[in-house]
Amino acid sequence: MSSKVVGILGGGQLGRMLAASASLLNIKVAVLDVGVDAPAKQIIASSSHIDGSFRNKEKILEIASKVDILTVEIEHVDVEALEAVQKGHPNVAIHPSPSTIRLIQDKLSQKRLLASFGCPLGSFQAVDANQDGIAHAAKELGLPLMLKSRTMAYDGRGNYVLRSADLESITAAIDFLGHGSRKLYAEKWVPFVKELAVMVVRGLDGTISSYPAVETIHRNNVCHLVWAPFRLSNIDQDPTLPTKAEHIAREAIEKAFEGPGVFGVEMFLLNDGEILINEIAPRPHNSGHYTIEACESSQYDNHLRAILGLPLGSTRMKVGAAGMLNILGSSNSGPLKISPSQSSLSFSDDLLVDKLTHVALGIPGASPHLYGKAQSRKGRKMGHITIVGTSDAEVRERMTPLLTCLAEVEGDTQNDPHSSSLNPHLLGYSHPHPLISIIMGSDSDLPTLLPAAQILAKHFPSIPFEVTLVSAHRTPLRLVNFAKSAAARGVQVIIAGAGGAAHLPGMVASLTGVPVVGVPVDSKSVSGGGGGLGGVDAMWSILQMPRGIPVATVAINNSTNAAILAVRIISAGQPQLITQMEDYLRRLGEEVKTKVDVMDDLGWANYRK
Amino acid sequence: MSSKVVGILGGGQLGRMLAASASLLNIKVAVLDVGVDAPAKQIIASSSHIDGSFRNKEKILEIASKVDILTVEIEHVDVEALEAVQKGHPNVAIHPSPSTIRLIQDKLSQKRLLASFGCPLGSFQAVDANQDGIAHAAKELGLPLMLKSRTMAYDGRGNYVLRSADLESITAAIDFLGHGSRKLYAEKWVPFVKELAVMVVRGLDGTISSYPAVETIHRNNVCHLVWAPFRLSNIDQDPTLPTKAEHIAREAIEKAFEGPGVFGVEMFLLNDGEILINEIAPRPHNSGHYTIEACESSQYDNHLRAILGLPLGSTRMKVGAAGMLNILGSSNSGPLKISPSQSSLSFSDDLLVDKLTHVALGIPGASPHLYGKAQSRKGRKMGHITIVGTSDAEVRERMTPLLTCLAEVEGDTQNDPHSSSLNPHLLGYSHPHPLISIIMGSDSDLPTLLPAAQILAKHFPSIPFEVTLVSAHRTPLRLVNFAKSAAARGVQVIIAGAGGAAHLPGMVASLTGVPVVGVPVDSKSVSGGGGGLGGVDAMWSILQMPRGIPVATVAINNSTNAAILAVRIISAGQPQLITQMEDYLRRLGEEVKTKVDVMDDLGWANYRK
Repeated sequence: MSSKVVGILGGGQLGRMLAASASLLNIKVAVLDVGVDAPAKQIIASSSHIDGSFRNKEKILEIASKVDILTVEIEHVDVEALEAVQKGHPNVAIHPSPSTIRLIQDKLSQKRLLASFGCPLGSFQAVDANQDGIAHAAKELGLPLMLKSRTMAYDGRGNYVLRSADLESITAAIDFLGHGSRKLYAEKWVPFVKELAVMVVRGLDGTISSYPAVETIHRNNVCHLVWAPFRLSNIDQDPTLPTKAEHIAREAIEKAFEGPGVFGVEMFLLNDGEILINEIAPRPHNSGHYTIEACESSQYDNHLRAILGLPLGSTRMKVGAAGMLNILGSSNSGPLKISPSQSSLSFSDDLLVDKLTHVALGIPGASPHLYGKAQSRKGRKMGHITIVGTSDAEVRERMTPLLTCLAEVEGDTQNDPHSSSLNPHLLGYSHPHPLISIIMGSDSDLPTLLPAAQILAKHFPSIPFEVTLVSAHRTPLRLVNFAKSAAARGVQVIIAGAGGAAHLPGMVASLTGVPVVGVPVDSKSVSGGGGGLGGVDAMWSILQMPRGIPVATVAINNSTNAAILAVRIISAGQPQLITQMEDYLRRLGEEVKTKVDVMDDLGWANYRK
Repeated sequence: MSSKVVGILGGGQLGRMLAASASLLNIKVAVLDVGVDAPAKQIIASSSHIDGSFRNKEKILEIASKVDILTVEIEHVDVEALEAVQKGHPNVAIHPSPSTIRLIQDKLSQKRLLASFGCPLGSFQAVDANQDGIAHAAKELGLPLMLKSRTMAYDGRGNYVLRSADLESITAAIDFLGHGSRKLYAEKWVPFVKELAVMVVRGLDGTISSYPAVETIHRNNVCHLVWAPFRLSNIDQDPTLPTKAEHIAREAIEKAFEGPGVFGVEMFLLNDGEILINEIAPRPHNSGHYTIEACESSQYDNHLRAILGLPLGSTRMKVGAAGMLNILGSSNSGPLKISPSQSSLSFSDDLLVDKLTHVALGIPGASPHLYGKAQSRKGRKMGHITIVGTSDAEVRERMTPLLTCLAEVEGDTQNDPHSSSLNPHLLGYSHPHPLISIIMGSDSDLPTLLPAAQILAKHFPSIPFEVTLVSAHRTPLRLVNFAKSAAARGVQVIIAGAGGAAHLPGMVASLTGVPVVGVPVDSKSVSGGGGGLGGVDAMWSILQMPRGIPVATVAINNSTNAAILAVRIISAGQPQLITQMEDYLRRLGEEVKTKVDVMDDLGWANYRK
């Protein structure tokens, strides 16, 4: 057997998940980290592991002598040692290369490199770690000012927000950032509305591929939640944002970094739709954990394939949507405000970790990952939970018990803003993550369209929908934005009601690839409109669309059928809906059978509808 | 920390995959099997593993002293030892229970037990392992007769097909089956059309759940392929077969076996729709490997959850379809008729295993699993490959390069019958696994419906469809069978064209939950029909469906739009189709823009369409 051995510098959770991918391909792995029981070492029985630090030159040379390929799960390794490996062990491939790691370790160099290739970045500059230097930067870039250590800064460590440029504030900043001993740089404050991330992977042959853009939510500078894929939150956002984010991330890796492997690109989305690169990690990344359950090949599979020179795996999502919650350690070893575990089984020595894991085990589509770390500490990454589902709404609903649990344990009186609230349909409001969008040109059409909303809320409560106004003739640009953004907001069917000239359904259909169901409205029933044509005018207008751009037309005024048709359409992605639809058909039949019995009972002459 | 330790008897691939699930929850595992490098031991570093046989009583008692829960990856363990554990270590839970294992070890007892609970089984009887006994059984049950060893029979070992009841044949059977030393029983030959399997899981609290029924294909009595979910192969099959198979499997486990864990139930499907139980394994099963990538929780996750008393995970499929190919060892160590590996990397010492793995790495949605077995032998299970996709057709197409590779290596001149043939649309034939079904009442409607097929074949070649005749008035029962079986055949949209009374679309919609697109046909264009109504007659009939049962109506004769609408509908399950649809819309726009240029160029007076 001539299998190659992969050495991993770092044996934490990323190394552990990389090792799990390696074992699927029967690839031998050796891990360098302190302790015989580091998370990655637990899941690969090997006599080749090395007990020592990934910052220790001797140990790095030692592991290099045992492997064919070296990779990292953390970029804060000893680069000089890697350069020594390059010289002393020319047959050992190092991915990412020592030069890439060196560049990435120094965040200012990283920014300068990206800037030199024209990648979109906020303003930044080097700063002398003293009063004058910082005051100068604050003057140039404005306040608040983000001060960062150039090296060894991650998860918010080494970052300081300077809010005022007075002597006292600057002194506090200097004290926090190593008392002048660490090299600093400054970034102009970026007023982002969302944080995005894209995992990019490049094969040994240069093939490049990317995972879909995701939304990341940080708390205290640490990744808290990930939603995949990233969705627009309103119709006025640029519908190309998701592909734009992917494009920016790929281009940054293509231009600025070389060599095979996975790169995590973190970005800011600004209010005006601009996307700026925040920073880049040359390895699998927290924001890509979800790919294990949600994509055709995970970021770990692909990192391994890339560094081994194998073909890259598909980065396509295989589920409708996914979410990821990091499980951080709690220092609360005292009595938490939580009920005891449902089972006697405990997974760690941290009550919060345990509690979240137990909650996750009760959620369909949730996969807890515990990292097997020896000790829990407050804020330490102890595990994560990935949730998959057929829609954003389902994933968020499934995530909610976890966020509620976390809020309870942390004593928050308010739920996490990312919890799904009560089913808004019960209250008669639109769902924030709709699969079905019910639109009409005028509120005078609402009485005709209302049965669509009512039947969905009553018979298919698991399907999120929205109801709003879009007028082809009075708000033509809103129509364009609505149609263009529909797919990027996650909408899978549009129900459009219209009377008279009835252009709304057809115009929407011409601007989106999402299926459109048209409801011809008899506008005689509508105040001020109508011409006594009984809706036939609207029907012809909606039905007789030109070749290539169909509208699924239903009977005049029959918005009930539009809703039922929309549910049938969604079943292409949620086969369980077919069963629900067949149950619904059965109930319709039973209603008729009940009437048969009544007619037999009363006699036809006495029967009254 | 008070985590429980799980002991696994057997360290092969099933133990390995169970251990992988355990590591996600940070559950400690100890494995009993021969060798320090058994597949399961490779992926759990532990000093608690035991080197010894799972048939060795002392070793079983030894592992019992180290764990809280004992489970098995193979049922051929020493049951007496487990009974001794029950007495000597009353705190160690054993799942499945020794009594269940004992029952399952003896296939005749297993059959008798199932029969006593009324589970559907073929005829069987005990047989004396001599001339008279076998001749008697052949007389009672007929020929061919399946003779089986009562114990230690798996993957076809211990099975013998007796085709003739003469002295010589019976002597050969006795010689094959242990020369009279092994207890035998006989089964009446079951002329099955398909083999099915259902994985059932029961929690410690008795909650029972099952995975969807799958189709299994055996070669030389060993599992070769699995297709999930099981689909009907024609419209005349009972559409409730998939749920019937699940029901039979669950009922068998509920009635005949106790205790928590996963059970694999293998079944035969007969020509008349009858389903018979073949045999049951009290553990994760080869036919459930696909659940790792294809379901919300895998069979391994669920076996672990069950025996630990945790809530069961969701058994729902999270992908449209999946397939699994077993990788068996090849004894061909000589020059195979295959090209050398694409990369210098080899995964095992078996060229066939290596070749299949390399082919799999080039297939989107394929996940190879190699088991890390020390030696390859001909027929030994060395790994498997799971393929996921959005549809049966996609999964089968993705599987084809693997089956072709296998056929090449094995020197078969013909491809595996389960390979997808050339895209049948190119040849003008229906796809055997359609997502879209185009139907019409008469071949006189074909000219009107043909553009639907043509536009699908030309612009959306990845979408499989069929074209056939279903007449509401001339073949009303065919209509019922067609509609009832559509979902169970995997059809996601039906396009129905009809003229005149035009009952076909609406009647189909009333019998299925699958969305129906109706194309009104102007029957004046049809020989012998029509009334000069221009298709308006059909349009009203298709459009004005009663509340609750919609038909998505498109313009008269516009089957192109029906096809485009069907593609839009399918995008609910295949978001990448939205992009394809938007590209299609762009091309439509470009056609118009070309005409603009021509008109500008020639002048409007000289322009000819």
